[in-house]
Parts: sequence; structure tokens; C-alpha cells
Amino acid sequence: MNFRVTNDKLSFRTTGDTDILDITREVSDKVAESNIKDGQVLIFVPGSTAALTTIEYESGVIQDLKDTIDRIVPKSIPYRHDARWGDGNGYSHVRAAFLGPSLTVPVINGHLVTGMWQQIILIDFDNRPRTRNISVQISGV
Amino acid sequence: MNFRVTNDKLSFRTTGDTDILDITREVSDKVAESNIKDGQVLIFVPGSTAALTTIEYESGVIQDLKDTIDRIVPKSIPYRHDARWGDGNGYSHVRAAFLGPSLTVPVINGHLVTGMWQQIILIDFDNRPRTRNISVQISGV
Amino acid sequence: MNFRVTNDKLSFRTTGDTDILDITREVSDKVAESNIKDGQVLIFVPGSTAALTTIEYESGVIQDLKDTIDRIVPKSIPYRHDARWGDGNGYSHVRAAFLGPSLTVPVINGHLVTGMWQQIILIDFDNRPRTRNISVQISGV
Repeated sequence: MNFRVTNDKLSFRTTGDTDILDITREVSDKVAESNIKDGQVLIFVPGSTAALTTIEYESGVIQDLKDTIDRIVPKSIPYRHDARWGDGNGYSHVRAAFLGPSLTVPVINGHLVTGMWQQIILIDFDNRPRTRNISVQISGV
Repeated sequence: MNFRVTNDKLSFRTTGDTDILDITREVSDKVAESNIKDGQVLIFVPGSTAALTTIEYESGVIQDLKDTIDRIVPKSIPYRHDARWGDGNGYSHVRAAFLGPSLTVPVINGHLVTGMWQQIILIDFDNRPRTRNISVQISGV
Repeated sequence: MNFRVTNDKLSFRTTGDTDILDITREVSDKVAESNIKDGQVLIFVPGSTAALTTIEYESGVIQDLKDTIDRIVPKSIPYRHDARWGDGNGYSHVRAAFLGPSLTVPVINGHLVTGMWQQIILIDFDNRPRTRNISVQISGV
């Protein structure tokens, strides 16, 4: 069987302001559709105010993550980005740069190797609702 | 030569509570065994309380990293995850989400391109000893 | 068309001390030269005092990112690495481990899928000027 690559998009409506979405099922569905059994899925969010990582998706720890991000990169301090551009989302840019825009997960026997309590999350740090078009690339055999 | 993909597992015993292990040699050995000369190794830790990154593995900077993590995501503050589930490892989940579960390193001429003082580390943030089964996927020619 | 992999290097002079460089054009040029239309580019910085991520490259938010890093992993507190080795760059190592040494971006129709305001950045955290040789690996069809 030949090594090949498929490119898909997933679209999500977000509320902004550190909105955290579980996108595991949508990514898994794309892996199943690709019919690639062994390889990897690369997920990438275009844009400079959103990020991807994994977490146990339950409301307690989701709030803990938000509280931690608020403490580390506060919304309420002045940002030079806002002074220059008036966007009001300087904190969003800094948060996104810290968490990073990409995530790669191995695919084995057609399944993501994520743990049972480990979900793939999209975090939208922007200060307003957005539609995010995520790139989902599956490569393998 | 054909592009191909190999999937392996590596197993590690950890003590938990931000236990940091140098796994460079084990990953390098898998690369050598794969006989893939040009490509990449994707390392992924299933589970929501562990992470992967690189650092110079010497005891001073390892302690510096632990101290920094303790300062940024303290163990001693209340977490909603703990209030809901009583696991006591809310801090572990938040730390893991920040650092991230995956790392990809290019392989050239059969060798990792990591720097001489740059080691691949597994960090177990959980609050108890664990056995971690890490996914090591090598793809290339 | 066959799946294949190309390995390149990019070299940058940095000033150190959280010098942040926009390397998007150089990476894009390598993608164009590779003639790979669908696949991914893996960027990796060898060394334990530098990192890669994405951000909107404008001077306001670049300074915001530096200020945030200074607040989270301060230069001015004692580090055990410095006590042991006298390098004075313990803070550089910790910062680099947090941000991470690798970034993977999908390539579709010969172009990076990064957003219009999203640039690929190299951050040199070391406490002195360096020459950084970054690994740029493009794989796909």
C-alpha cells in the first residue's frame, strides 16, 4: 500500500475569550474517512489568536486551565499591541504563541493513540466570536 | 526506497509529581532499529497528566524547570477538578496541557538532529507513580 | 507521484536574550524549492536555549511576548544551573523547554496554511549572540 496524504478542513464556531472546544470526535471521523491505517494526523489552526493541545475534557479542569491562563497572561494588564492597534486582543496573541498552533497525533490501526481521558482541544483566545477553519492532514499507509 | 512508517512503544516507570526522565537513548535506539535514514520521529504520550519537550538534562536545570512549573501552576492552590473528582491531581492536568503531549524530531542519515546538550524528556505530572507507554512513530525512507 | 522527504538547513544570526526573528519567508522559500505540493514542513531548532512558535509579527505584540516571558520565567532570580555551571543562562534553558523546539505546518498546493497575520518565529533565549542552524524538513507528494 502506498504512503499518501489527505487534506481536510474542519469548521467551528467559537465564542472567543478562551473558549475551549473538544474536537476529538470530528478529528477521529476524518481519520476514519481517510482510510489511512498507520500514520499520523497533523492538526493546525491558521490564525494568531488560537491554539491546540490535549486535556481531560471535563468542566472542572477546563475552568482550571482558564483560571491558570488568566493568572499567567492576564487580560487586565496593558499590552503594547492594543496601544498600537486598538484591537484589545493583545492578551489573545500572547496566549496563543505560548500554547502553539499545531498538534500531531499518531494513528495506529485506524485509531488515534490518545488516552481514554485525553481529548484534543481547540482554544480560541480572541476577544470576540470567530469561525475557525482548522487544517486536518492525515498521512500514512 | 519506499516511504514507510513504523510504530513502537516505549515503557517507563515514573515516580509522578513532576518526575522528569531523559528518554533520548531509548528513542534513538528505536530510530536505529527502524533502519529509516531520512524522515522524522513522532513521540506521543497518551494520557492527560504527562508531557514531552527537550532540555539539557543536568540536575541543576531540571530542578529549575520543576521550580518554575511549581511557581506558574502551583500544587497548593484549589482546583475545581479536585473539588469535583477528588483526584488531587488538578494541577497535573493543567501542567500537562501547557507543555503538550507530542514532539517531532527530524531524522537525517539515521540520526536525530537534536543538539549535543539537548535531551528528549518525558515529564510525569501525575500525583502518583505511573507506568507510561509512549508511542514512537518513525516515518521516512 | 511519490511521497518523498527533503532536508534543508537555514542559518540565522541572533542577538540572544529573547531575540525574536520572523523566519516565515525563508521557510516558504524552502517549501517552494522542494516542489512538494501536499504534505508538511517540520521545523526544528537544535540546541536547548531556543524555541519555535507562531505569532503576528508586529513590534507591539513581540514586546508583549517578551514582557510576558520575563514575568513568567524571570532573568533576575537565582537558577541552580547557573550555580553549577556559571553559564548565566539558566533562565534561557527553562524558557526554551516551555516553548518547545519544533513546529509542524501543513503544506497544501505548495503553500503553508498559516494565516495572513501568523508568522513563524524563532526565539533565541540564550544570553549571547548565536548562529542558529535550523532544520527544515519537507515531506509529501
